[in-house]
Amino acid sequence: MSICPLMVSEHHILQLIREKINGIEGTKLDDHFLDLEKKIDITNKAVTEILLKTTEYIQPNPAYRMKLGLLSPMLKIHNWGKAPGCLQPEGLLGNCMLKYGQELGEDSTFGSALTDMGEAMKLMAEVKESFDINVKETFIDPLQLVQDEDLKQISNHLKRLEGRRLDYDYKRRHVGKIPDNEITQAMEKFEESKAIAERCMFNFLENDVEQVGQLALFIQAALEYHQQSVNILQPLQRKLRMRIAAASSLGRNDFMLQPLRRCPKSLNLSTTSSAKSIGEMPALGPGA
Amino acid sequence: MSICPLMVSEHHILQLIREKINGIEGTKLDDHFLDLEKKIDITNKAVTEILLKTTEYIQPNPAYRMKLGLLSPMLKIHNWGKAPGCLQPEGLLGNCMLKYGQELGEDSTFGSALTDMGEAMKLMAEVKESFDINVKETFIDPLQLVQDEDLKQISNHLKRLEGRRLDYDYKRRHVGKIPDNEITQAMEKFEESKAIAERCMFNFLENDVEQVGQLALFIQAALEYHQQSVNILQPLQRKLRMRIAAASSLGRNDFMLQPLRRCPKSLNLSTTSSAKSIGEMPALGPGA
Repeated sequence: MSICPLMVSEHHILQLIREKINGIEGTKLDDHFLDLEKKIDITNKAVTEILLKTTEYIQPNPAYRMKLGLLSPMLKIHNWGKAPGCLQPEGLLGNCMLKYGQELGEDSTFGSALTDMGEAMKLMAEVKESFDINVKETFIDPLQLVQDEDLKQISNHLKRLEGRRLDYDYKRRHVGKIPDNEITQAMEKFEESKAIAERCMFNFLENDVEQVGQLALFIQAALEYHQQSVNILQPLQRKLRMRIAAASSLGRNDFMLQPLRRCPKSLNLSTTSSAKSIGEMPALGPGA
Repeated sequence: MSICPLMVSEHHILQLIREKINGIEGTKLDDHFLDLEKKIDITNKAVTEILLKTTEYIQPNPAYRMKLGLLSPMLKIHNWGKAPGCLQPEGLLGNCMLKYGQELGEDSTFGSALTDMGEAMKLMAEVKESFDINVKETFIDPLQLVQDEDLKQISNHLKRLEGRRLDYDYKRRHVGKIPDNEITQAMEKFEESKAIAERCMFNFLENDVEQVGQLALFIQAALEYHQQSVNILQPLQRKLRMRIAAASSLGRNDFMLQPLRRCPKSLNLSTTSSAKSIGEMPALGPGA
């Protein structure tokens, strides 16, 4: 039996009109079936929304999300490896820190710290990119496949069933005009479709541990990402603390003024809260 | 001495024209001064770019970034606490998982797992929001202040110095026409401004360990965020693994078909890779 699109006949349309406009009731499906159908419907909606929200979670910037084609399975994933982390905000911050760190030079405590942090941020970007790829491969793509194949197949069965129900209901309302064996055949086809749809839905829902497995892989990827980030940040924190301690223990260089003919009337330049750092001036040079 | 905007006199303009158009050289500042000026310029650019890239890093979504007013110091921060994490993508994913988890019910393994994960994602959103607020308060705002006050003040000193240099250079080119004491006064003012600007730049750069301290606070916030995320995700991973183990050990319920008049010709419905989950059907019911 092939899964072809629902064939809508004249009978179906007439029966539909009867039900929708004239309020005549068609054959009802049993509660067990309706319960399965409802659960499949919720699952379908859940999968759609989780896919969308997951991509927003792993890539909150819509422009970058589009570039990576996060919602296009398998697409563009080959672009990811070219410049690892180059589009990640961590990587952009890292590049900028490395640039200014180099410009300020190693003599500058701030410059050296920027270089330390820039290198760490570049690693953070790589780790974040691995996370993105991991989630896409182990969670987004498989879940998309569940929707595109399993849930789509169930949806096709339900459409076919609805067609066969309309056909059966039309025919049984025309007893006498339509031969008995045709009515029996329509009923059999309806029941056959119902059994298949029911079995598919039941099996899918019974297998929902597969989706839980996908969630677990997602969480594993997130856990690895955060753990790896900790592993990058811990040594960076130690490095920065050492730089602070070293700079503090060295004390400041003496500021040698060019000889002045006379001392400025007042050096009380600042009225801001940051006056501390600027206002704390060493004693004036010999010319002052 | 107040820091007023540079007063541009006719002298300054004439001297500027002479230098820019006729290529006449003005009084040169010494290498030490120029080196400080260059370092201050790099620091200024570094601070501007780091501020921008940091907000992009902690909030990659431009719309959310705007809502939080991340680049407007102190602004809107009072809005943050109202619904913790409600705008964070983790929170949105969490809400969606909680909703569908509840709809599927506790009987569903997938539904229960969604509830577990939804709760964890809401916690992740809170932790992420704390990180955002932390970085804003301990890094972005103080660094913005450094730029708005310390670096701005230095910039004002440099502007004033340039004005005094132009004045001095104009006057010393008009020896004879301008009284000697006025020229001497202009030179003294120029040297006074130079000394002040130099001292401010020197002190700011000598104090750059303060900026390193800010970087260290940023890294501490990031470290806490990733560590807290690990602490949320680890028990979630255990929970999901237990759900998978429990579902797998229970086995599946038997699928009871409604009696069929005849068996469908073929149940080989699927040709997709996902056939496994749908195609694995239990033996047909008694009516088959």
